[in-house]
Amino acid sequence: MANRRFEDLGIGSKAAESRVRLLNRDGSFNVRRKGLPFFAWFSGYHYLISLPWWKFNLLILLTYVTINAFFGAVYLAIGVSGLSGIEGHTVAEQYLQAIFFSTQTFTTVGFGRIAPVGTGANIAAAFESLAGLLSFAFATGLVWGRFSRPVAKIIFSSNAVIAPYERITGFMFRVANQRKNQLIDVEAEVTLSRLETSGDGKRARKFYPLDLERRTVTFFHLSWTVVHPIDEHSPLFGVTEEQLYGSEPEFLILLRAFDDTFSQTVHARTSYRTKEVVFGQKFKGIIQVGEDGMTEIELDKIHDHEGVE
Amino acid sequence: MANRRFEDLGIGSKAAESRVRLLNRDGSFNVRRKGLPFFAWFSGYHYLISLPWWKFNLLILLTYVTINAFFGAVYLAIGVSGLSGIEGHTVAEQYLQAIFFSTQTFTTVGFGRIAPVGTGANIAAAFESLAGLLSFAFATGLVWGRFSRPVAKIIFSSNAVIAPYERITGFMFRVANQRKNQLIDVEAEVTLSRLETSGDGKRARKFYPLDLERRTVTFFHLSWTVVHPIDEHSPLFGVTEEQLYGSEPEFLILLRAFDDTFSQTVHARTSYRTKEVVFGQKFKGIIQVGEDGMTEIELDKIHDHEGVE
Amino acid sequence: MANRRFEDLGIGSKAAESRVRLLNRDGSFNVRRKGLPFFAWFSGYHYLISLPWWKFNLLILLTYVTINAFFGAVYLAIGVSGLSGIEGHTVAEQYLQAIFFSTQTFTTVGFGRIAPVGTGANIAAAFESLAGLLSFAFATGLVWGRFSRPVAKIIFSSNAVIAPYERITGFMFRVANQRKNQLIDVEAEVTLSRLETSGDGKRARKFYPLDLERRTVTFFHLSWTVVHPIDEHSPLFGVTEEQLYGSEPEFLILLRAFDDTFSQTVHARTSYRTKEVVFGQKFKGIIQVGEDGMTEIELDKIHDHEGVE
Amino acid sequence: MANRRFEDLGIGSKAAESRVRLLNRDGSFNVRRKGLPFFAWFSGYHYLISLPWWKFNLLILLTYVTINAFFGAVYLAIGVSGLSGIEGHTVAEQYLQAIFFSTQTFTTVGFGRIAPVGTGANIAAAFESLAGLLSFAFATGLVWGRFSRPVAKIIFSSNAVIAPYERITGFMFRVANQRKNQLIDVEAEVTLSRLETSGDGKRARKFYPLDLERRTVTFFHLSWTVVHPIDEHSPLFGVTEEQLYGSEPEFLILLRAFDDTFSQTVHARTSYRTKEVVFGQKFKGIIQVGEDGMTEIELDKIHDHEGVE
Repeated sequence: MANRRFEDLGIGSKAAESRVRLLNRDGSFNVRRKGLPFFAWFSGYHYLISLPWWKFNLLILLTYVTINAFFGAVYLAIGVSGLSGIEGHTVAEQYLQAIFFSTQTFTTVGFGRIAPVGTGANIAAAFESLAGLLSFAFATGLVWGRFSRPVAKIIFSSNAVIAPYERITGFMFRVANQRKNQLIDVEAEVTLSRLETSGDGKRARKFYPLDLERRTVTFFHLSWTVVHPIDEHSPLFGVTEEQLYGSEPEFLILLRAFDDTFSQTVHARTSYRTKEVVFGQKFKGIIQVGEDGMTEIELDKIHDHEGVE
Repeated sequence: MANRRFEDLGIGSKAAESRVRLLNRDGSFNVRRKGLPFFAWFSGYHYLISLPWWKFNLLILLTYVTINAFFGAVYLAIGVSGLSGIEGHTVAEQYLQAIFFSTQTFTTVGFGRIAPVGTGANIAAAFESLAGLLSFAFATGLVWGRFSRPVAKIIFSSNAVIAPYERITGFMFRVANQRKNQLIDVEAEVTLSRLETSGDGKRARKFYPLDLERRTVTFFHLSWTVVHPIDEHSPLFGVTEEQLYGSEPEFLILLRAFDDTFSQTVHARTSYRTKEVVFGQKFKGIIQVGEDGMTEIELDKIHDHEGVE
Repeated sequence: MANRRFEDLGIGSKAAESRVRLLNRDGSFNVRRKGLPFFAWFSGYHYLISLPWWKFNLLILLTYVTINAFFGAVYLAIGVSGLSGIEGHTVAEQYLQAIFFSTQTFTTVGFGRIAPVGTGANIAAAFESLAGLLSFAFATGLVWGRFSRPVAKIIFSSNAVIAPYERITGFMFRVANQRKNQLIDVEAEVTLSRLETSGDGKRARKFYPLDLERRTVTFFHLSWTVVHPIDEHSPLFGVTEEQLYGSEPEFLILLRAFDDTFSQTVHARTSYRTKEVVFGQKFKGIIQVGEDGMTEIELDKIHDHEGVE
Repeated sequence: MANRRFEDLGIGSKAAESRVRLLNRDGSFNVRRKGLPFFAWFSGYHYLISLPWWKFNLLILLTYVTINAFFGAVYLAIGVSGLSGIEGHTVAEQYLQAIFFSTQTFTTVGFGRIAPVGTGANIAAAFESLAGLLSFAFATGLVWGRFSRPVAKIIFSSNAVIAPYERITGFMFRVANQRKNQLIDVEAEVTLSRLETSGDGKRARKFYPLDLERRTVTFFHLSWTVVHPIDEHSPLFGVTEEQLYGSEPEFLILLRAFDDTFSQTVHARTSYRTKEVVFGQKFKGIIQVGEDGMTEIELDKIHDHEGVE
């Protein structure tokens, strides 16, 4: 599979001349999608599941207030005489008490100090408690879905390096699992994207999948240095530091793994662009054996590299 | 695997002479299934999960009304004297109030203005609240299951084209992800089905899997043009436009992908039949670079193609 | 992989001389597991998820009655004076009312006609309502887990046949999807198990994986005839009807598929033993084209076969 | 793939000189992770899902008590005059009753004997019932997530053996499914780790993946003896008992399987270190045929082995 060139990696060859990176360090894509109306591309699930928790909680709270303000108005419209236990005399007081009754109905707490007596209020309360239960059914799924969603927390070394590797050189970066849960059968995929000048003088971005010394590791409890050997099959073979930087390279990284806690497949993405790839450096060791004979890994030093002669 | 012929692709060779398409544009199958009683093929899960939302909500509402009408009748049959707080004098009024009490019990709102005092009413209420909680348990799963069900929204170009491709020609169609969520490891599978006249003059439909230039793409953030090269291994090699249309061809498409938001595998299906495949056309570019250097994709133009000389 | 012999297919070679079938028609195994205490092999999840619905509902009901009988006794022990609204004079009446109060607390319906006033009753009620909510949390998962559990309903033809196939003969059986939901990427695996007499005259059961004409089908909307060609690589090559039956053969079948509704992988198992494999028969066609040109499949005729000359 | 040496199996070659086992018998790793702050590596999901049940229940209970103590204080601060039905005269009595009201609000049982009348108390109660419902939403997911989490219960034989195997010798261990649920497509992976002295006299730990006679079994209803044949491709070829023990070997085992009840992939891990591997022993048979012709497996004897001459 080495040394094959693709115009199109599901990325489109025109992404070519772009001057900004395609894939951000955090794994999101730098692409503007145009031409589709909101409802066509918007996914409620995706939005609600990836919202930060503080926004999510605020959204829940606002929804709760809005619904009760609405149902309070409904009870007021039907007439507060349909509710027993309302004590307010002004409309404002009555509306406030109707809202309180609404919260007690919507959450099904139903104290009963205020209770529906009229037919209209009874019907409204019957549907509000149904709406409440279905809303909380939805919220139950949402709260749990957010919490139990498997997201791989992979630490990628902040730089990739090009350094001597066995008798040749290699492109390398280092990864580790930030969390304590087990990742199993971790698989790496590396794609090089760079600008090339074709025969007719046009400059276009090309994509090359890169061969790896090892594509998968079974256990991933310590760290893993992913290595692309720069041999005669590599598109980087014979490329100098200057030539590489001149081609505005971006190394797109995808990691697949099986998360043993969630029993699901997870992914992590990142990219290294231009000067994030450093020449003549190698990663410092971060694994040692403690005084009690136990293996230790220093995860804060995963980014550290040092010069090689 | 090229140029192999299958009588049977899990589709059955007799699907052969059918004059209507096998696979609809929306991915559903055009097949009538006979001979099994309702309960054998009916899947409640499948039905409830794929019902449109407005029908689903109506179903919930009707079920709620029916259950309360039933339990209201139960309380009436036991005797309203078993309930405290019933004020109606006519049977109709009492039934209505019994229904209201039922809704308060079923949803566990339990205001208590009407409350069970007799043994019979207490027993009925005890079981109604149990039934209510189990029903809402079920509804919780159903509402969330519907919302969180992964469904790939893939845009397929409205036409496939047969156009020059490198030094030969190719059968091509274009796909993109309609939603903003990430699809990873997208894989395409294309099967050609066409009528053929065998040696004894009988006309039957044959199925051929088609080789693709690329079967998978790792990232799928822009668009992907799936290409079947019409080389000497292709069943379309040397076939003219007239011959192709004459054979009533149907190109069956299956896309598999991993949805990064749902952490699940998803599928999309479609087919191109006869004149949906156009000759001598190529797809217009839809990817460009914005003024700020960012890559842009115009998803509304994914169907656009233009003549090639 | 053809013609390899395995002593052990995860089945163990001593399963060898067994006179009863290893795998039942319904896919369950005919094996007695001994030597482990109940708690070691019992899986509560597996039990509760595969219980028939009527037993499951009965279990829920009994649990509900038991819990309320228990908490009723607790309130009685604390003293009914701790509860307001208890009207009974005899202990039996008071116990019954305490049970009713318990049901209202456990389900959180909380009418309030009977309500805790004493400290002891209040504490007991606080924990009963907590227990109630957690129980229903569990029941919610259970009810939904049972309903949404993906189970493939595959119809296997009641007989397998050995019949002419192309220029040789083949071992064949037919499968179809009983449900209307889509199964995708269906894969079949067939293992032959039979008694053989080794050199030293000992009779033992051997297992052979059988090659298939096609191992997978992408779409599975109609029926699929799985074929093992009996060529020179087959352990059935040259075996007569008498010899086959004499070896007490059992053909173990496993089908894997991806269920598009559940977005999960599902399995189905069955076996054909001795005379369930018939010689000189072929399956009758069950696919035809309706008057409107639509493809039809008659699923009730999937078992039908007829003699071939 | 045989006889390849890896410095790094996602384990890191420096794990090398460690004097304690890398992988415990129960499948957990013996590695100390340093340098990351608590919030970076801590996964709430992982913690709450793998907590023992008694700790989990205690946590729920403590959370419940704490929340109600807090909200009780809130009602006290707002003023008990905002609540109807409070009968206590001392602050302690009032606080206790406020706590009881809080439990009735948080669980939504809402008896109503104590009920909010003041605006402040009403607002507090409205938010407490919302908080209660969301908490129980979370608890619902958690209780069910814990119960329905697929965990493979695999019995590994307490020793591995090195014994004659066909015409050579083999490294073998035996596994069985402890539970009654079906595991399908079970796959084994064995890695040898041992100390080696390199040319310059430095002692370092090396890792070798071991070839297996069979890597996968389709059915896993009885037991499976996993065999690594010690042929000329094996790193154990020609190694004596003394040499093996001297190299402080650790055999790392990973089993993957598909759990048919949970419809999910599961894993089990273990390791055999130094003297846990015994020479010249073979496993005793544990499969037999009962008097009724049914196959039987004695799971308590899975660890039993006996000498071979």
